Amino acid sequence: MTGDDFPVPPTILWKGGTEGVVDIIDQTLLPGREERRDIATLDDLIEAIRSLRVRGAPAIGIAAAYGMVLGCRTGPLQDPAAFRARMEEVARRIKAARPTAVNPMWAVDRLLAAVAASGSADPRAILERLLAEAHAILEEDLRTCRRLGELAADLIADGDVVLTHCNAGSLATSRRGTALAGLYEARARGRRIRVFAGETRPLLQGARLTTWELMKAGIDVTLITDSTAAHVMRTQGVRRIFVGADRIAANGDTANKIGTAGLAFLARAHGIPFHVVAPRSTFDLSVPDGSRIPIEERPAAEITEAFGLRVAPPGARVYAPAFDVTPAMLITSLITEAGIIEPADSATIRKVLGPGG
Amino acid sequence: MTGDDFPVPPTILWKGGTEGVVDIIDQTLLPGREERRDIATLDDLIEAIRSLRVRGAPAIGIAAAYGMVLGCRTGPLQDPAAFRARMEEVARRIKAARPTAVNPMWAVDRLLAAVAASGSADPRAILERLLAEAHAILEEDLRTCRRLGELAADLIADGDVVLTHCNAGSLATSRRGTALAGLYEARARGRRIRVFAGETRPLLQGARLTTWELMKAGIDVTLITDSTAAHVMRTQGVRRIFVGADRIAANGDTANKIGTAGLAFLARAHGIPFHVVAPRSTFDLSVPDGSRIPIEERPAAEITEAFGLRVAPPGARVYAPAFDVTPAMLITSLITEAGIIEPADSATIRKVLGPGG
Repeated sequence: MTGDDFPVPPTILWKGGTEGVVDIIDQTLLPGREERRDIATLDDLIEAIRSLRVRGAPAIGIAAAYGMVLGCRTGPLQDPAAFRARMEEVARRIKAARPTAVNPMWAVDRLLAAVAASGSADPRAILERLLAEAHAILEEDLRTCRRLGELAADLIADGDVVLTHCNAGSLATSRRGTALAGLYEARARGRRIRVFAGETRPLLQGARLTTWELMKAGIDVTLITDSTAAHVMRTQGVRRIFVGADRIAANGDTANKIGTAGLAFLARAHGIPFHVVAPRSTFDLSVPDGSRIPIEERPAAEITEAFGLRVAPPGARVYAPAFDVTPAMLITSLITEAGIIEPADSATIRKVLGPGG
Repeated sequence: MTGDDFPVPPTILWKGGTEGVVDIIDQTLLPGREERRDIATLDDLIEAIRSLRVRGAPAIGIAAAYGMVLGCRTGPLQDPAAFRARMEEVARRIKAARPTAVNPMWAVDRLLAAVAASGSADPRAILERLLAEAHAILEEDLRTCRRLGELAADLIADGDVVLTHCNAGSLATSRRGTALAGLYEARARGRRIRVFAGETRPLLQGARLTTWELMKAGIDVTLITDSTAAHVMRTQGVRRIFVGADRIAANGDTANKIGTAGLAFLARAHGIPFHVVAPRSTFDLSVPDGSRIPIEERPAAEITEAFGLRVAPPGARVYAPAFDVTPAMLITSLITEAGIIEPADSATIRKVLGPGG
């Protein structure tokens, strides 16, 4: 399971030069249909991010980067000042697509910084620079996920039972994933592992995506409803919990898919190590703690009418935050490509990530 | 909201004499369709229990009692010995329909004891006795739910925010409910309350049933996914948690809908009182602790294909326990019609329930 024989298809690619397209696997159709989709416009890219055709913090960071190319290339290429205004508008729109995950903001800011550093005002040169930097983000993500997997796999013993939530797998990144990368690497090292995957209501990323990709890799995965997690921790010998992250504050508080915080409290009560696996790009050191992370709310219909059937009375009030914040004190370690941050606190984060994160 | 103006229709009735039928509201059709169904045979009654057309520990206790009449009346009414064998076979089948909730076992045993106490061997007289005792169980449940509501409502202050799981409401009992009875009574006393209802995967009793009945009663209810509970406890000012029970062991360990144990751990971590509301008939003092309560597993398809759409890959392994066990140490009090059991331990249970439970 190294190199090109990795069994899960790439989540997101760019095909062509600055006139090319973003090529994604449409995750809203999985596991029923495995279809790829070409995205050629900024509007379509933002729709794909909002509707979760492409999702997962690292993957939407990559999508955001390529989105800058899609959005800017239809701008006023003959007018550098107007082009710059266009670029800023495109950046603003991409950053607003989903408010919790910081990776799109990070990616867009990195592209803008690269353009500024290039010193060029020529729109066509800027487009080339944007595309090159987007490619660099994708390439780095591929290396990062491999490194995250190596570090996490060192924690996994033969026969271990692990639990995960949502999908922080290959489909949430360029490839291999964050939380699931260690499972793929442990498997490549010949370790037998058993995984419990929470289905992750309302959109069932665990049921639809995590089981799909782990089954492709031949990893023993058992699907549970989210609220079965406590029972599984108490009766099935869970040894570790691995989850991803959408944004990590300077003190280690971690926003991730709704339900993650509950798992962390349960893990603490049962003495089970709880690991957050995420690239450096998921850290937002400008945010002092989790209370300052904006939490996206999703449409009520994702709960009351998900998958086409109405399951709540008309007019039922719904509260549908897409994320929650896990207090840093409940996190055993933050696993990043720069090293393992343990304990998960401000000082250790600064030490491992270096100045400025 | 007292007496006959209670806004939720009766869950289960008997129409007629010993040749009558069980009349239930078909809960699998709610909230989309409010349809009643006449059940005239034991096979249909067992199907209704297994498929959750009638569900909730007290309600299936009542259904089990009437099921004895349905099953026995087609027996050999001219042959007392053969009729007795038939009665035992019917009792066995009803008890096996769902293994975790103790109320059906309790109800069936109560009917058998009533028959034994009557001293009659005449099948027709026994049928009359079975029906009379089933009616008595229903009537007692109506009184019990009202009493549970009074006791629980004493704990609810104006403006309180409460959280519940699954449906331990009117639909889970004859009427009014167990965990929800206090909310109806608090409302009748003029208290404004706000309720968060976990949707309760896989079969969504919270979304389909709890929101439906609380909305009928004009109670402010907000639906959440189950894994949103921790976030709600941390951000929405939850003051108390009320749940029902399917079986309570002699030491207070409580089997209830999967997800309940997790809520209890979260409640403890956040200092929120956690109340189990249940009739005496839910206690099984023959079981010393929760580890001895059999936990029913449901078909995998309820998770992978619930509501008609396949949401997991073909062949996905599933673990689908219908219940979990909440350790007594996490339960603030057990609210029963005999009084409030606090702390929830063996000594206090014996003291409040009296000898023999």
